[in-house]
Amino acid sequence: MGKPLSFEILCRSASTGARVGKVTTLHGAFDTPAFMPVGTKATIKGVYPSMVAQTGAQIVLGNTYHLLLRPGAELVDEMGGLHPFMGWPGPLLTDSGGYQAYSMADINAIDDEGVSFKSIIDGSTIRMTPESAIHTQNLLGADIIMAFDDCPPSVDPDAAPINQTRLRQATLRDSEKKSGYDHQARLDTSNERTARWLQRCKDAHARSGEQSLFGIVQGGADLERRARSLEMVCNIDLPGYAIGGVAVGESPEDIARVTRFTAARMPEGKPRYLMGVGYERDIVSAALSGVDMFDCVLPTRNGRNANAFTREGQIRLKNARFARDPGPIEAGCDCPACDPVACGWQTSEGRPFSRAYLRHLFASEEMLGPILVSLHNLRHFQRLMEDLRGAIASDDWASMGRQWPGVSDLLPGGDTKSGPLASET
Amino acid sequence: MGKPLSFEILCRSASTGARVGKVTTLHGAFDTPAFMPVGTKATIKGVYPSMVAQTGAQIVLGNTYHLLLRPGAELVDEMGGLHPFMGWPGPLLTDSGGYQAYSMADINAIDDEGVSFKSIIDGSTIRMTPESAIHTQNLLGADIIMAFDDCPPSVDPDAAPINQTRLRQATLRDSEKKSGYDHQARLDTSNERTARWLQRCKDAHARSGEQSLFGIVQGGADLERRARSLEMVCNIDLPGYAIGGVAVGESPEDIARVTRFTAARMPEGKPRYLMGVGYERDIVSAALSGVDMFDCVLPTRNGRNANAFTREGQIRLKNARFARDPGPIEAGCDCPACDPVACGWQTSEGRPFSRAYLRHLFASEEMLGPILVSLHNLRHFQRLMEDLRGAIASDDWASMGRQWPGVSDLLPGGDTKSGPLASET
Repeated sequence: MGKPLSFEILCRSASTGARVGKVTTLHGAFDTPAFMPVGTKATIKGVYPSMVAQTGAQIVLGNTYHLLLRPGAELVDEMGGLHPFMGWPGPLLTDSGGYQAYSMADINAIDDEGVSFKSIIDGSTIRMTPESAIHTQNLLGADIIMAFDDCPPSVDPDAAPINQTRLRQATLRDSEKKSGYDHQARLDTSNERTARWLQRCKDAHARSGEQSLFGIVQGGADLERRARSLEMVCNIDLPGYAIGGVAVGESPEDIARVTRFTAARMPEGKPRYLMGVGYERDIVSAALSGVDMFDCVLPTRNGRNANAFTREGQIRLKNARFARDPGPIEAGCDCPACDPVACGWQTSEGRPFSRAYLRHLFASEEMLGPILVSLHNLRHFQRLMEDLRGAIASDDWASMGRQWPGVSDLLPGGDTKSGPLASET
Repeated sequence: MGKPLSFEILCRSASTGARVGKVTTLHGAFDTPAFMPVGTKATIKGVYPSMVAQTGAQIVLGNTYHLLLRPGAELVDEMGGLHPFMGWPGPLLTDSGGYQAYSMADINAIDDEGVSFKSIIDGSTIRMTPESAIHTQNLLGADIIMAFDDCPPSVDPDAAPINQTRLRQATLRDSEKKSGYDHQARLDTSNERTARWLQRCKDAHARSGEQSLFGIVQGGADLERRARSLEMVCNIDLPGYAIGGVAVGESPEDIARVTRFTAARMPEGKPRYLMGVGYERDIVSAALSGVDMFDCVLPTRNGRNANAFTREGQIRLKNARFARDPGPIEAGCDCPACDPVACGWQTSEGRPFSRAYLRHLFASEEMLGPILVSLHNLRHFQRLMEDLRGAIASDDWASMGRQWPGVSDLLPGGDTKSGPLASET
């Protein structure tokens, strides 16, 4: 059997750590840096699959945790796997479910063998181990599958400002405090477990001829521990590696600092995936550090709430100031909401959907509102990636900066004095 | 200015009153008999406009009552009218709002001048008259606009079986009983008002060069009164006429009986529109009586509730028996749910969305469930119309009957012994 994944670096940025590449799987290829829309429950919420592709997405993600609970991995397998089940013929990635088990579930127990948690569907107890997580992903059949790792809070919940911690960290802290929570010890335990579990994942992987297992580097926001996890994880030979435990409540500066440090030390010739990130600035900053793959629920989650991404920042389409606004969400955008002609309307009436119309749809609780803004947001992130790949290849950062004013200070030659990364080296 | 509507009868059925035609408006043409999906609040619920067109729909309908309340007709006008506002460049029809004012609203008063009712949005009192209904529709700018008529209960609520009356009829009855409800008198009043209001509509119509006003025949389920309304309404020269006050709670037999009687007496050379109808049997029966246009919310309303139309009857996709069903909603269907290849998937993975997947989507409350089943149902009704037009042209009713077993007893040469129309002449 041929290699289920190949990664070709097509060009490297002259002035940053960024690269443009192509990942080829048995279900097709995708360009990197890549943004992967999230299809949590085997659907990109509200969007017909061919329209997801129309936004430029070449690979999408499914969440093992949710699919495990419903409809169950065996059922998906019976239906031929996740590709035909969800109507997505291209490359697919599933996470391991570990992150959700930690962050969403009522955790009963974490031990060296795995995690026990309560199902959010029926309250039953679910046991997840490295072996079961891989087995589930083998049944789902995505092209890229993720190791089952131990996700610690990234920063000490006691030390972090409250707005930088999330509820799940507080929950973890409370339960772990009972046994005397020690953040540094927790990171060490996580590092050890993550490495041991990764080997168990690799050993349990029954479809390595078709699916590519990626390891995940942990270590919290502590660079020394990141370095240790890097060594242990990347010591296990795999087709790609991810940075986990980032963007779980830290500041953008911490996200960038940890990502930059970690990405630079990951194997050069393999795809690097920053899990669950993020906003445009996080993505650009990480791509400049050499990260190749990103995923985030922001485009669809914010789209459902009438929040549209534009290059000038997010706008809230429920706002009364848009009530009589005839303009599109964003001038110049070629998404199916801003440019319906691109979607098959050939007549002179193929004008953009107006902000006034979108506001009306949200006021009327019409599904088309979330659909259109999700489409726009998905396209927004794909355009960011396309422009980023272009800028890496051309080294024309000034042009990228003009197109994307919100990230211009992060780019080479950009004014970094006031940028959030100004204090970094 | 050219005629805003022309109607060409392309062929007549040899054995029935049916005809195949083409209606041409300033925004394009549509084939008849036509099924018009309903976009109540300026959107076919859950479906991107180009996908509505992809199901075969050539004309869609908007509801004046809902649009009047939100976002308001002035706003729609400001945005260039309903066509660009809702992203539908083809032919559009708006109803007058009268039916909804009667059926949905808390009616304060009906008199010879118009109707006053409470807004379902903010409780304010709205006054609707023939003039205001036409003015509103002039602002919305649809190609076909409807007269403001007086809608009586079709049958005497006291005489009708309870399951054939609707809540609104009961409401009407209660309020009208206070002044001593007399069904026959109510029908006479309605007939008079409907005719007088129609002339006022015609006089008030300010955009007759672009929009075509259709009159509406009332008369309840009483054929004598239908005949009287026919005479009064069709005496006013208009580009098309509709049958109103049908399918508001009567039996399928009554619907067919009244429709057959009325359609046969409507002007031969103008489009005939049966408002708010209906199920496949109602549509086929009416088309055979010479009706050209239909609209109904069933495809999208039932689609949202996981009820899929098939030629064998409706199936409820939430049902547990579909949990592991790998088949499409309906074998042989070419809709975007049953045949994604038709929607741009070129790969071997372009398999149908399975019933198992659809059940999963509904169980997970994912928007894609309603979207896919609405698309399927919209296509179902368009296929019915396409096959009906084909059968009218070819006079091959046997073939139509084999394709559509649920309506075969209604067709010429079909076994009508047990059919609901068996007792009719």
